[in-house]
Amino acid sequence: MTSSDTHKSRAKDWFSNLQLDICKEFEALEEAVTPPLYHGEPGKFEFTPWERKKGPNGEDQGGGRMGMLRGRLFEKAGVHFSCVYGKFSEAFQAQIPGADQSGGAFWASGISLIVHPRNPKVPSVHMNTRMLVTSQSWFGGGADLTPVLDFQRDENHPLAQQFHGAMKDACEKHDPAYFPKFKQWCDEYFYLPHREEPRGIGGIFYDRHNSGNWEDDFAFTQDVGRAFLDIYPSLVRQTYEHSWSDAERDEQLVRRGRYVEFNLLYDRGTTFGLKTGGNVNSILSSMPPLVKWP
Amino acid sequence: MTSSDTHKSRAKDWFSNLQLDICKEFEALEEAVTPPLYHGEPGKFEFTPWERKKGPNGEDQGGGRMGMLRGRLFEKAGVHFSCVYGKFSEAFQAQIPGADQSGGAFWASGISLIVHPRNPKVPSVHMNTRMLVTSQSWFGGGADLTPVLDFQRDENHPLAQQFHGAMKDACEKHDPAYFPKFKQWCDEYFYLPHREEPRGIGGIFYDRHNSGNWEDDFAFTQDVGRAFLDIYPSLVRQTYEHSWSDAERDEQLVRRGRYVEFNLLYDRGTTFGLKTGGNVNSILSSMPPLVKWP
Repeated sequence: MTSSDTHKSRAKDWFSNLQLDICKEFEALEEAVTPPLYHGEPGKFEFTPWERKKGPNGEDQGGGRMGMLRGRLFEKAGVHFSCVYGKFSEAFQAQIPGADQSGGAFWASGISLIVHPRNPKVPSVHMNTRMLVTSQSWFGGGADLTPVLDFQRDENHPLAQQFHGAMKDACEKHDPAYFPKFKQWCDEYFYLPHREEPRGIGGIFYDRHNSGNWEDDFAFTQDVGRAFLDIYPSLVRQTYEHSWSDAERDEQLVRRGRYVEFNLLYDRGTTFGLKTGGNVNSILSSMPPLVKWP
Repeated sequence: MTSSDTHKSRAKDWFSNLQLDICKEFEALEEAVTPPLYHGEPGKFEFTPWERKKGPNGEDQGGGRMGMLRGRLFEKAGVHFSCVYGKFSEAFQAQIPGADQSGGAFWASGISLIVHPRNPKVPSVHMNTRMLVTSQSWFGGGADLTPVLDFQRDENHPLAQQFHGAMKDACEKHDPAYFPKFKQWCDEYFYLPHREEPRGIGGIFYDRHNSGNWEDDFAFTQDVGRAFLDIYPSLVRQTYEHSWSDAERDEQLVRRGRYVEFNLLYDRGTTFGLKTGGNVNSILSSMPPLVKWP
């Protein structure tokens, strides 16, 4: 394996702490909202640790910590940390760079989150960053915003502009080529061909990212996380006091159906995970709480 | 092509008329229900004819007639007839028996339906039968019942027993081997491996069915349609006056999520249709009107 134990340990600690920082921030937003738009108690995260099943010789293969919040501002939010390792199945091995050369051995740690706000004026969001090690080592992930109301689903809307701006700043600290490349990759990935529709307004997406400088690549992935932690709560605070109509709630519920379609038809993590015996609860925690196909 | 124009014309007329007969029966059920359990006007089918795009030389390639009802008993029901023909794409050709030998030419007609009742005590149902012609000719399809409440999701429940009994009778008029074979095929097909759950309580499923006797195969497919037209409305009448609790409505909405997962992850018709430019509205008309992933 090309990445040292120190690298792995630093990356793992980062993802684990980022999960807790994001959850704390989301809970503060839950506290901040008030009636008449929001009812009931502020939501709190429930954390559920889980373990991968033991290896063939009883060896530990890692696990994770699911964080789920069902609240008044965030109708459903999942923020998950994981650190898993062991050997890929032979079928999977062929699909992962460097896994043949490592005899299938791998190590992976990351954070993934998805937020479905109750208020249709508050955009949904997805963020996921990870470090992978086989005989090679790389980072991957990104963050993308899904406003659910048509009038917000536009590159020129202030919410979209701020989100793209934050991701651009994170990229440009490292390489001016990153942002245009990773933004385009995001637009291509989060697209529903059968609807001829983008999932949201985009963001950034990168994978198999190894510039040759681990410190800089790690710092980049950290900057994406920090950018998310700063910008998304800001967008939430800008929108959560706007009231909404029944028609807007309906538009949100229908739009969430597109999210389901994307995840079950196209998302590689979801379909691969489900078809190869992954943790169903964790994988499908991204599904929206209430959806309409009228 | 092995099947005569007379065969095609008779099959097409059967599917087309069966659609109208089923719609009439469903509308009668909409009329029969009353407050306090059901509100508003009885639902009526809206029929929407559609055409496949013309062939490379402007030739007609068939089309269909979608029937959608959004009512008080049937929250959403789609009953669709289609008759399409032309040439398969080369990629598809390889997957269809006899299509290479026909130079890709095909003819297909069928009916497909899905019902999502409002009352959780009334089971959902799916039925789909079709005739296909390439250089070979066959029938395929089946009918399966999806009760959404746990206590009904049991082979020994009277609803399940009656449904299986009706399908068994349709099969046994033709061959005593059909029912056990087609019932097992159904159980295997309508299964969610990631949940380790059956979709419903089963029914029958058959495909590439050609016994060598077209008349008998056509009569069998007609008997499946007639059995459906008799048994499902009977099950609806046995259950529609039973009131339901909020908890049962919730159980229904969650169970519908499994239906979505099956259709988008595994159903060959859905995934193939969506990924190859089929009629999105028609294909996704099977999606439940309201769904929960809590």
